[in-house]
Amino acid sequence: SLDLPDQPETLEQILVDCRDTLKYGVRTGHPRFLNQLSSGLDVVGVAGEWLTSTANTNMFTYEVSPVFVLMEECLLKKMQSILGWSDDVGDGIFCPGGTISNLYSILVARYHFYPEVKTRGMGVLPQLALFTSEQSHYSVKKSAAVLGMGSENVFMVKCDESGKMIPAELESSIVTAKEKALVPFYVNATAGTTVYGAFDPLNAIADICQRYTLWMHVDVSVELFNFKYLFSRACSVTWNPHKMMGVPLQCSAILVKKRGLLQECNDFGAEYLFQTDKNYDVSYDTGDKSIQCGRHVDVFKLWLMWKAKGSEGFGSQVNKCLENAEYLYDQLLVVTGNLSFDHTPEHSNVCFWYIPPSLRGQPPGPDRDARLHQVAPRIKGRMMEKGSVMIGYQPLGDKVNFFRCVFSNPATQQEDIDFLLDEITRLGDI
Amino acid sequence: SLDLPDQPETLEQILVDCRDTLKYGVRTGHPRFLNQLSSGLDVVGVAGEWLTSTANTNMFTYEVSPVFVLMEECLLKKMQSILGWSDDVGDGIFCPGGTISNLYSILVARYHFYPEVKTRGMGVLPQLALFTSEQSHYSVKKSAAVLGMGSENVFMVKCDESGKMIPAELESSIVTAKEKALVPFYVNATAGTTVYGAFDPLNAIADICQRYTLWMHVDVSVELFNFKYLFSRACSVTWNPHKMMGVPLQCSAILVKKRGLLQECNDFGAEYLFQTDKNYDVSYDTGDKSIQCGRHVDVFKLWLMWKAKGSEGFGSQVNKCLENAEYLYDQLLVVTGNLSFDHTPEHSNVCFWYIPPSLRGQPPGPDRDARLHQVAPRIKGRMMEKGSVMIGYQPLGDKVNFFRCVFSNPATQQEDIDFLLDEITRLGDI
Repeated sequence: SLDLPDQPETLEQILVDCRDTLKYGVRTGHPRFLNQLSSGLDVVGVAGEWLTSTANTNMFTYEVSPVFVLMEECLLKKMQSILGWSDDVGDGIFCPGGTISNLYSILVARYHFYPEVKTRGMGVLPQLALFTSEQSHYSVKKSAAVLGMGSENVFMVKCDESGKMIPAELESSIVTAKEKALVPFYVNATAGTTVYGAFDPLNAIADICQRYTLWMHVDVSVELFNFKYLFSRACSVTWNPHKMMGVPLQCSAILVKKRGLLQECNDFGAEYLFQTDKNYDVSYDTGDKSIQCGRHVDVFKLWLMWKAKGSEGFGSQVNKCLENAEYLYDQLLVVTGNLSFDHTPEHSNVCFWYIPPSLRGQPPGPDRDARLHQVAPRIKGRMMEKGSVMIGYQPLGDKVNFFRCVFSNPATQQEDIDFLLDEITRLGDI
Repeated sequence: SLDLPDQPETLEQILVDCRDTLKYGVRTGHPRFLNQLSSGLDVVGVAGEWLTSTANTNMFTYEVSPVFVLMEECLLKKMQSILGWSDDVGDGIFCPGGTISNLYSILVARYHFYPEVKTRGMGVLPQLALFTSEQSHYSVKKSAAVLGMGSENVFMVKCDESGKMIPAELESSIVTAKEKALVPFYVNATAGTTVYGAFDPLNAIADICQRYTLWMHVDVSVELFNFKYLFSRACSVTWNPHKMMGVPLQCSAILVKKRGLLQECNDFGAEYLFQTDKNYDVSYDTGDKSIQCGRHVDVFKLWLMWKAKGSEGFGSQVNKCLENAEYLYDQLLVVTGNLSFDHTPEHSNVCFWYIPPSLRGQPPGPDRDARLHQVAPRIKGRMMEKGSVMIGYQPLGDKVNFFRCVFSNPATQQEDIDFLLDEITRLGDI
């Protein structure tokens, strides 16, 4: 029973509750959990999270989190150097998830161009316009709504067939926005879109941002060890170590290439919380840089994993995942006929349809599409009932439901991929 | 060394790092950590957090968090019943900290009155005004800035000597805002202010909100077991189980007395994430109610503690803290002369000055104030160097720095309080 009692339950019952919670949950650490980029179960990462919860403190002031505040600083500097940002130009903060990181990017971009917004609000600003690709994460639209900019002022720029933003389309969207008397100020580029894992053309987008004086943010869903210096022209970057780096949930950072901006944008210097007459350097009281007050300590598990693996360990872990993606793609090439695809993987996402016997040989058209649309949900439903493997599916534009397999768990082996394809065939032919 | 290596370090070094991290951290679970409301170390809560990190999943869709999604629903219903809200009128969500919960309250209030803001932005709205007491948490101002409303449109309503909002001042602030052509829409009342732990007069504020058709939010920093039904007139409530209920960080919820509002305000129905053709009731895919996407699982530790203690257990744990506050206050009454105060505790906050020998007998005035202002920081600095006890201090209005002691750790005993007062005297007389 999930009900919450007035009287305490016995310790035996508490242990049963714990066992049941794990039993009826989803084993995201299983090598055949291919549903999301957050997967796997890194033992050092889990140990880090256990120590964090035992320390039970807040990223708020140096006085309550001296070690974790220093670790955050150290991690942010390292991450900036990987981005190719020169020393001491940048800043950043860990925050609860990639969507909030993306929200921060819009927030600091707005403040960068219109610092008066902090005290006076959007009422004194022109109507702003934002740009992101139609295949980017929905968090840009969501954040624009939260921040009071209105989702309809987010222009969804067209992508090419591989899911990359088309630079000429970005430029024409900017022109359209201006014609509507909107003021463009922010472009989100994506490195690793949700469905295809596509990379927007960052350099071409950076050129356009430079030409129109726009803030360029890059939402990175993948890791960065294989992409050093690709992000050097970005004004801000969302980096999610809880995805391909396998850090336990949650661990996400926003990095901003303008030192002091986060602080200026968000601080209110509440004297009863951030006393300036303390016996240490109060610039380490980082709580006021945040839109939160206290923050959960998300840095220790990442720091500890980095110590245990080294940058090279993260790199080879990611390579393992990319090899798995390549293997799946190769298998799909071999077995065409009942498995179909029209997308070449760029990173760890592999997308494909399963064509059940009843649809094979049927001519393309609305009737076949309507039936094919039901195949992936039905197979996934059967997988979940059986508990054998887990994989995502979705429609995209005019394409009906197809499977999307992502690899981020280094425990996944080629035999798991073979199992996946066999299982799809088994369950899809019923 | 905090530096992040390219090559892995040895397991021995990793263990040393873990030990050092705990060694140089602050023991927030220690009975003499009296610095913040988040303190203590509940073993069941920690076990819950350990299981959570082992499960390593996301509050996003039912398919990846079936058990935790149901637990959240169960907790929210229970919490609403404690608030005195009738069945099925309310809704809520767990989110990363009290500041984000307060942000949600402003966000949904804005959407409630002006649903067009979601798509069209603040540009099509009148200039809105918010009201909160001058002693409330700074998150109201911060959130108003984030949401694009401008911090100067947050009216800081005057408090009486005990730190409570003065209803007549609220009403005159509302009139002033209207005269400035602003549109009042939101009032934040506080149950347990940060410094004094004061309770705003909720009924009088609710009357004013009703008269002017304003959204009434209550930011509850204390627990709710001793205050059943006090909050029945609120439109939304922030409840932080990571404070006096002793749940490990973080655990905070926003409760909204209008079912469906959170979903309508925040959803963007991204089809590639929230497929509607899944083989279960997709209303359990709660991710789109959130301003995040994936959320850390903060519910399990609370759920497990509730099972282990029962509501009554939480109640008696809180009573223990209130007894400690009373004991400290009684001791202060006894030893006046070198300890001074002008505030009667309402809940668990006890505020006082320490008067060192050099200031005793000196007449009140700017000179004495200037010197007294330095006393608490100096004593706290010595406490931290010695590592003997930890307590907060701050100025407030025209009052110079004074100590604020808060009790939320049920492990704190009367002898710890005796120690605190002795230690202040020892360190303050140097």
